[in-house]
Order: sequence, then C-alpha cells, then structure tokens
Amino acid sequence: MNVRMSVYILGFLTLFEGIFMVVPTITAAVYQEPELMLFAGFAVGLMLIGFLITRFKPANKTLFARDGFVIVAVSWILLSVFGALPMYICGAIPKFVDAMFESVSGFTTTGASILHDLDSLPKCVIMWRSFMHWIGGMGVLVFIMAILPLAGGQNMYLMKAESPGPSVSKLVPRVRKTALLLYVIYFVLTLLEIVLLLIGGMPFFDAINIAVATAGTGGFGIKNAGMMIYSPFCIWVVTIFMFLFGVNFASYFLLLHRKFREAFSSEVKVYLGIFLFAVLTITLDIRHLFENVSTALMHSSFTISSLYSSTGFSTVDFNQWPTFSRTLLVMLMFVGACAGSTGGGIKVSRFIIFFKNMHNELRVMTHPRQVKKVKLDGHQVDSEVIRSVNVYFACYIMLYAVNMLVLSLDHLDLTTNFTAVVATMNNIGPGLNLVGPASNYDVYSGSSKCMLIFNMLAGRLELFPIILLLSPSTWKK
Amino acid sequence: MNVRMSVYILGFLTLFEGIFMVVPTITAAVYQEPELMLFAGFAVGLMLIGFLITRFKPANKTLFARDGFVIVAVSWILLSVFGALPMYICGAIPKFVDAMFESVSGFTTTGASILHDLDSLPKCVIMWRSFMHWIGGMGVLVFIMAILPLAGGQNMYLMKAESPGPSVSKLVPRVRKTALLLYVIYFVLTLLEIVLLLIGGMPFFDAINIAVATAGTGGFGIKNAGMMIYSPFCIWVVTIFMFLFGVNFASYFLLLHRKFREAFSSEVKVYLGIFLFAVLTITLDIRHLFENVSTALMHSSFTISSLYSSTGFSTVDFNQWPTFSRTLLVMLMFVGACAGSTGGGIKVSRFIIFFKNMHNELRVMTHPRQVKKVKLDGHQVDSEVIRSVNVYFACYIMLYAVNMLVLSLDHLDLTTNFTAVVATMNNIGPGLNLVGPASNYDVYSGSSKCMLIFNMLAGRLELFPIILLLSPSTWKK
Repeated sequence: MNVRMSVYILGFLTLFEGIFMVVPTITAAVYQEPELMLFAGFAVGLMLIGFLITRFKPANKTLFARDGFVIVAVSWILLSVFGALPMYICGAIPKFVDAMFESVSGFTTTGASILHDLDSLPKCVIMWRSFMHWIGGMGVLVFIMAILPLAGGQNMYLMKAESPGPSVSKLVPRVRKTALLLYVIYFVLTLLEIVLLLIGGMPFFDAINIAVATAGTGGFGIKNAGMMIYSPFCIWVVTIFMFLFGVNFASYFLLLHRKFREAFSSEVKVYLGIFLFAVLTITLDIRHLFENVSTALMHSSFTISSLYSSTGFSTVDFNQWPTFSRTLLVMLMFVGACAGSTGGGIKVSRFIIFFKNMHNELRVMTHPRQVKKVKLDGHQVDSEVIRSVNVYFACYIMLYAVNMLVLSLDHLDLTTNFTAVVATMNNIGPGLNLVGPASNYDVYSGSSKCMLIFNMLAGRLELFPIILLLSPSTWKK
Repeated sequence: MNVRMSVYILGFLTLFEGIFMVVPTITAAVYQEPELMLFAGFAVGLMLIGFLITRFKPANKTLFARDGFVIVAVSWILLSVFGALPMYICGAIPKFVDAMFESVSGFTTTGASILHDLDSLPKCVIMWRSFMHWIGGMGVLVFIMAILPLAGGQNMYLMKAESPGPSVSKLVPRVRKTALLLYVIYFVLTLLEIVLLLIGGMPFFDAINIAVATAGTGGFGIKNAGMMIYSPFCIWVVTIFMFLFGVNFASYFLLLHRKFREAFSSEVKVYLGIFLFAVLTITLDIRHLFENVSTALMHSSFTISSLYSSTGFSTVDFNQWPTFSRTLLVMLMFVGACAGSTGGGIKVSRFIIFFKNMHNELRVMTHPRQVKKVKLDGHQVDSEVIRSVNVYFACYIMLYAVNMLVLSLDHLDLTTNFTAVVATMNNIGPGLNLVGPASNYDVYSGSSKCMLIFNMLAGRLELFPIILLLSPSTWKK
C-alpha cells in the first residue's frame, strides 16, 4: 500500500471539495442566508487543508490494484463526511446519521431522503444537495485525473475502481484525455437541459437544481409540491434528459465523430428496447387511472425514465399503480442504466454479458463439441470480464441477503425492505410502500440507515471497492 | 437424438407408473371406494402399454448429453400427465389444469395445492398424492436405472440431468449400484419414520401418508385440520425426519461405512449451522406469540425444517410471524436442502461454491499474483462445476423475472407473487400472504398456474433439462 501517494490523492479530493463548496456559498450570498459564513468557512478550510497536503509530492507514485480500490472507497467516505458536516452544523438536519444519509445519497446520486419538509430548508442547502449529485455523477476521482497530471498508466486502477460498468473502455489512449472528453459532454448536456427548462418556464433556481440532479441521475426533490408544479414541456424535457444521462457516454463521443453504427452499441439498443417495451405496457396498464392517454403516457414515460436511469424523480405516486406496472418498475430498478453513464444499477451490459454467457453455456451442455466464445458488438468478451460479472452478481446477492435480515429488525413490511435495498444499492431513491414516492427513508431506525448508507456507497462504486475495504484479505501483506 | 432408445426408456417409465398406481388401487380396495376400478384400470393399462413398448429393444443404445436432458424432461411431463388423469376423471379435481398442478406438485415434491377441502377427497386420491412425493423424491429415472441393466456409462447423463445438486458424486464406481444403495437408505428411513409416528399415536393411514411425503420432502396436507391434531412427539419426529431427508444421502452411506469425518462434509456442516442459527433467532423472535418457550421452539423448528428442506408442512400460520422471521424463512426457502437429498431449492453446496468462488475472485482483485483454486472438503472444485453453478444462477434469475411479470397480471400483491415463485421453483409448497399456509394456489388464474407448473418441473430437474427442452438450439442438428 502506497500510503503517501494515497494521502496525496485524498489531499486533492479535499481541495476540490472546498472548491465545489463555493457553489452553495454563492447561493447563500445571493439569497442572503445566515448559512453563508458556515459554507464559506468550509470552502476555505477544505481548500487550505487540501492545498497543504498536496504540497508534499510523494517520490514514489506507483499505485497497485489494491491501492486503487482503497483510495476510491476512502475518498467517497471522506467526501460524504465533509459534505454532511455543514448540513448538520447549520441545523438543517439535526441528527448526524441523517446528515450522512443525505450526503451519501447526494454524492452517490441516489436521491433517497430522510427530510420531511423541503420548503423550510435554506436555498444553499437545497443547492448543495443537488450539486452533490452533479459532482458524484461522473466520479470525483476521474475528475481529478482529468485536470491533474498524476502518474501515467497507474491511473487506470483508479478509473477502473470508480467507473460504472463491467469494463472500462478507453476512448482515446490516454486516461486523462478520455476523462476530459467525458466531462465536456457532461457539461454541455447539463447546460442544454437548463436552457430547455428555462424555455419551459421553470424558475432559474429550480432549473439549475433539477438539471444538475438529472445530469448526475440523482433525484433529490427540491420542493414539497414535487415535480407536478412545472409545465408538461418541462416534464418531458426532464424525461428525455434522464434517459439520455443513462446512456453510455462513449456513444455521444462516437456520435460526435459520426460513427453512427458504433454509437448504437448492443447495450444502447437493449436499453432503448426495454425502455420502449416498458412505456408501451405500463401506459396500457395505467391508462384507466388518468383522464387521457397522453397524460398516462407522460407519467409512465417519466416514471420509467426516472427509475430505469436510477434518477428517482416522481410526478405521481407509482406505488398506487397496478401490480404489473409495479413489478416491471422494480425490475427496471434492478437493471439500471448503461455502463459508462452517470446512472446506477447493475447495468444493461452486465445483464447482456450474464445472459449471453448463460446462453453459451447452455448450448455447450447439449453440444459439448461446439465451444463458442461470448461476443458483444463483434468483439469477444474477455473471460476476465465474464468472471467479474459473475462475482458482481454473487456479491450483489450476498449483500441483498445481509440487508434483508438487518432491515427486517425494524418490523416494516417485506416489499418496503426489498425495494429499499434495490433503491439504495442501485442508487435510485424511491422504492415501494413505505419508501415509495409519497413517503421517505425516515421510517427506518438509525442502524438500518447505516446499512442503507453502506448500500449507496457500495452500489455507486460497483460493490468491489467497499467490500474489499472491509475484507481482511485486502490488508494482508 | 436417439429416438428409439428414448421411447424405450419412456416405455419403462410408463410400465413403472402402472406399477406405482397399484398403491392407490389397494387403498381404494381397502376403503371400498368407487374409484377402485378407475385406478385399477389405469394401473393395468399403463403396465400393458409400458410392457409392449419395452418389448422392442433398440439396437443402438448410445445416449448423448442432449438425449439425457430431453428424456428426463419428457419423462417428468409424461409422469405428471398420467398422474393427473385419474384424479381428473374421478372428479376429485374438476379442472384438468388443476389436476396437472396437483400432479406436478406431487411428483416434483412441491406440495403446493389448489384443493380447498381435503376431507372430502377419497382416501385413494389422498394416498396417490402422498405417494407421488415418494416416487418423485429420489428420481424415477434413477430408480429405473437402479433396477434395470441399461447401457453402461451412458446412464451418467440421465443421472446427471435428474439428480439434485451441482455435481453428481458416484459413491461406488457403477451408477446402478449407487442408485440401489441410495434407495435402500431411502426405504429404511421412510420405514423408520412410519414406525416412530405409529408409536407417537398417529393413525396408520396418516402415518404412511405423512412419512412418504416427508421422505420425498413433498408436503401435501392430508386433512383440513392440518398437522396440529397430532401429538408433540409426532411433530418432533416429522421435524427431525424433514431435516434428515434434506441431508445429502451420500453422508448416510459414508456413516454406514464408519467414515464419520467424510460424512460431515462442508455442506452438511453449513446446512446444520444455518438450521441452528435459524431455530435460535426465530424462536426468540416468535417467543411472545406462544404460551411458553418449548412451544415456540417446537413451531419454529418444525417450520424451519419444513421450509429449509423444501417439504412445506405447517403447524401454524407463519405468515403471521414478525418480519425478521418471515424474511429469514424466505431466505431459507431460497437456499434449500443439500445436494443429493430429496429436497429442492438452490442447494447449500451451490451457495458454498458460488460464494467461495466470489471470495476467491475478490482476493485476486487485490492480489493479482496470488491465484488460488476453489476448494471444497479438500478437493479442488472443477472449473466446469463453477461455471455450471454460475449458469444455474443466471437461469434462475431469468426465470424469476419472467415469472414475476406473468404472475403480476393476476393483480395479487408482490410478496404473494415473489414467494409463490420461490415456493414452486424450489419445490417447497407454501409461500407468504395469499399463498401462505392458511391459503392456497387456487388464487391464481389458469395461465399463472401453468407458469407455476413449469416452475415446479424446472425446479425439480435443476432448471437445465426443462429450459433446454424449450431451447431451439437443442433441436438443431
């Protein structure tokens, strides 16, 4: 373990969190809120600490696989603690475990909340919550790599440990350039959404909040009244952008280079196909609940786009929908968005590899002499990737089992617990029943909240870093 | 595909089902029931057809892997159809889909029922239902192999396709001898349970029914009043035998040969460990629902033994128990019994291999140079077995998803559907809510019942034969 190098990177993390906190500081200044000094203090303090730590450049910059996992896991925990502190100290969230829940939910782009009254919150806290989604969306360490010249090829371990999806595809040979390109796409898409929301008549503050939360596929609400106060145009804009931020960003890169065929990868096709199937069937299923088909279509599209992309905004209480719709929604929650997007979940490509491998192995059973390899978009899938997908599912199932037992001690119903786990582990936000869109996670006890905090972090980092951080074998020489 | 050889084996199956039907025929004769002629007719008819088919010995007895899967799948469907017909014709079950449900549930040792009034059923039908469990318990094709000299090593494909668990361990070099030995153990244990139940004061008819149903880990009820009319001694006897029939039969074989260390394999240890953990925690959790600890202990042990071994008998409505108990019970339902037992489910050893492999792969992530192999009881687990375990989980998840969507069309609640799937796919019987011990599967529509019938067959044959039967690639040249 290269401790000095790890501390050096954590120093950058602190420095950048200080810089990020300028955003809520400005918000507090604009709205003349009493929390101004607190956020300003945090911003300056973190920047100072980070600046001091990063003065000490380590001589040995070599990082190993293990370092990558540990740095990523510790970074995200640290990020969340610093993010929680101002919300706790200013009194917006009286309990520290609740502030941590909200902060982790923010950075991991989950959007699950324990707050009952959003309208009484200071604007700067609202802004900070939403902005956390935007920071968390593309991975803060990838961000650091994008703008800082760290050690060369070793960065791959960091990117691998933080990036969503079964494998990291480098679009251009150098990691740094890849990260920069992705950030440009991220930034431009966010800006586009803000402009469209303003055109749709949404107030400026709301438009920024909703847009950054959509970009990170987060989904924190900003008003007690929810989304239905905005125009149908705005609802459709958010629907489309939630879907777009769930697409693999590599596709946009390829589109910009006019490689249209490559841009529509198997993953994007399946993602779109499942989306259309869900919209069609759920619209039919909920048709009778609304005054006309177009309203039903709007709500079903919004809800599907929201849960499938792991954003978690809601326009209606889908917990009241018929069984078929609720079942399909829960299934979409499990699938999640595309790899390489800001979305959470198991990821479409992981399912494709999982089931393609299954199909392949079944064929071998009946035709033992016809051994074939699993292929995706014409390329053979590396056996290492297949194995890592299988391990991912094993970890997922194990974590699910532990969760169900821990949460069951709170005596809530099984559907609430079952969907609370998927909603946190896949960084979505709302589930069904007591954690449905009409309720929130404050129904759980402190220990259950800790479990859910663990889920959100584990889920955002695709399970391995957080599990490895706790595994004794990681710390063996 | 060796069609002639397949028909030849199906001929034996028909012959033996005719012989098995002598049991309900005798029951009808003893109780002088009007169904006597029907069952006698079926018994004679099936024996005759089977006898005729098996006169034509095929010249080429070679069987390939594909043949093994297809023969096993078709055999079990045929077995169930013949089993359903007398119950349907005699009017005990007015709808054919219901009769098929009951028959498949019987042979697959599930014990899920659509019948509301057991007391009005003829004794011969009750006996036939219970006896189906006993036939299904150890696999009817293994039974045929045990007593018939079929082609030599090729039988392994049949045994592999029908036996429960990730891999088939041949206790003695020849398949036939292995099967015979297992049957002796099966028979002796059943007899022992009958004797103990009679000592406990259970009526003769009930004792035979309960014992054969326990042996097959089936769990069809035989009286509307349920199990609580019997003495606590009988309840404990059934508890212990349900547990014992969930143990890998190879352990008994090893015990008889005084190989005590080998008999307590990792799987048996984990099976026992989980059982004791569940008994301890659930007894504490339900303590307040009963007059004293010993009653709570009796009911928790019985219920855990019943669901864990995939039998499905019940003494109380465990659907009324607290969330922790219900959650743990559902998890035990997923795990299921040991490989090589008569129990259903995913099997303890499959979970051990799944998680050991996970642990191994996680270690490789942080220590890429320390490649280790997965070991079980000192032996290295074949990579083919690990792959087949992964494929099993993939198939399981896929089937689960299809099921949840199909069942959701009936508008029942999610917990009912979720537990109905595990209760049928793992051949248990009761689930929670509307398919809990106080209710039954008649709440579902015809199409959902067909899905559940499919699950029971797929589950009993460990998924692959039934999936492969439906897969187009199986039928390609």
